[in-house]
Amino acid sequence: MTDATHSIAGLQMAPAFGDVPGNLDGVEAAIQGRTFDLLVLPELFNTGYSFRDRDEAQSLAEPFPDGETTQRLLAWSAQTGGMIVAGYAERDGDRLFNAAAIVANGQPLGSYRKIHLFGFERECFDPGDGPFPVHEHKGLRVGTMICFDWIYPEAARVLALNGADVIAHPSNLVLPGWCQQAMLVRALENRVYTVTANRFGTEHREPRKALTFTGLSRIAGPDGKPLADAPEAGEAFVEAALETVRSRDKQAPSGNDLFAERRPEWYADL
Amino acid sequence: MTDATHSIAGLQMAPAFGDVPGNLDGVEAAIQGRTFDLLVLPELFNTGYSFRDRDEAQSLAEPFPDGETTQRLLAWSAQTGGMIVAGYAERDGDRLFNAAAIVANGQPLGSYRKIHLFGFERECFDPGDGPFPVHEHKGLRVGTMICFDWIYPEAARVLALNGADVIAHPSNLVLPGWCQQAMLVRALENRVYTVTANRFGTEHREPRKALTFTGLSRIAGPDGKPLADAPEAGEAFVEAALETVRSRDKQAPSGNDLFAERRPEWYADL
Repeated sequence: MTDATHSIAGLQMAPAFGDVPGNLDGVEAAIQGRTFDLLVLPELFNTGYSFRDRDEAQSLAEPFPDGETTQRLLAWSAQTGGMIVAGYAERDGDRLFNAAAIVANGQPLGSYRKIHLFGFERECFDPGDGPFPVHEHKGLRVGTMICFDWIYPEAARVLALNGADVIAHPSNLVLPGWCQQAMLVRALENRVYTVTANRFGTEHREPRKALTFTGLSRIAGPDGKPLADAPEAGEAFVEAALETVRSRDKQAPSGNDLFAERRPEWYADL
Repeated sequence: MTDATHSIAGLQMAPAFGDVPGNLDGVEAAIQGRTFDLLVLPELFNTGYSFRDRDEAQSLAEPFPDGETTQRLLAWSAQTGGMIVAGYAERDGDRLFNAAAIVANGQPLGSYRKIHLFGFERECFDPGDGPFPVHEHKGLRVGTMICFDWIYPEAARVLALNGADVIAHPSNLVLPGWCQQAMLVRALENRVYTVTANRFGTEHREPRKALTFTGLSRIAGPDGKPLADAPEAGEAFVEAALETVRSRDKQAPSGNDLFAERRPEWYADL
């Protein structure tokens, strides 16, 4: 690999609700022997998703970076030298966030707190206090957003404008096919790579309705085409090569520089 | 039809370069006997696309609303009572724009001047002096953007935030499949209808390289699904029913109101 090529990856998995040690061990086994410059794990990969209420979310939330989950992420990143972006429930005093821990080579880089909460998450978590973050490691610039942030084009756009080569996108997707299709457009319109690491399987924690996660974790390239796809169900490690020469070239085939030719004077209503 | 249902349509066609009277007659024949609340015609439907230089564009450009083309649009809109959005070259003193005339029921409503020019259009036209417009007719709110504006998510977003039920999208698309796929996402993320009226066929005006337009004109609905599709080649009139109760409901299945839950404080970099 040259300096300008990086390996990017995502792990599709199905955590058992509430079994943090078991879920951590499962990921550790799944990535054993893998190498990557960036690894993305699903949203709330360590706890499961369907919290019954805020108290339950509180009971499974952890501080950053001292919590058990981030400590394990730090260890894995130190072993591999790579960056890891992984969803977890973050506790900060009385506040609770649906967050993504961002670590690299044994160092904590930040915790992104989901800005656009989905459905009942609004009962369990506080809305993220931003901004959308971009972190650099080994020359690779990684922007992070979580799951439902995808439906807001502003999210990926802000990350790309701030220099992201790749958007790390921990997810627990339940709307069939919507996001997987849309991420091709997010990649294309921003000329970046995207790594959507999704869950599979069904989680049913009454009185919440059963949720089936849609799998189909996907890496997309700056031309809007899939580079790697996971199946609908089953644990899967998806990976692809990222070339920064591509993600930093914002030209369409027409010769238009998509970023330089933006006209923000007409976007004021955003 | 109830007050809240409108018929929206697009005409896919292949103009002959430079033959404005012939192209106007062709459209008149194609829409004979049709009814619509909104009809979208392709970008530069009256002149063709591949201007050799600015002088040639100047020679085929017309003022708004006094030019021959807009006068014909006005007549057609008076006959049908509908709104028409149609691409043409606009002359305003020394300035030239790749524009869309917007008329309804015999009245000129405005001329949208393309904000994001594509490829060699930058040699022939001045960049649009905005804003992205939304016009209302018979209770239907129509936002207008032209062709390459699609790749900028800001364009459709601004139109939708300003109340568009439907995005009228005159086009001359040449990148295979890119836009047709993306318009499903533009419709979904904004919960609006879209009408992309595209050209088909090949135009070759040396020394410019031959351009093949991709056809596949498409109407999409707020759920991100196609409502009507034209073939890759051939004249085609695509139409669908628009319900404003759908385009004004910004809720995702999760109960999230996609517009009310935007968080512009984190979009400042746009």
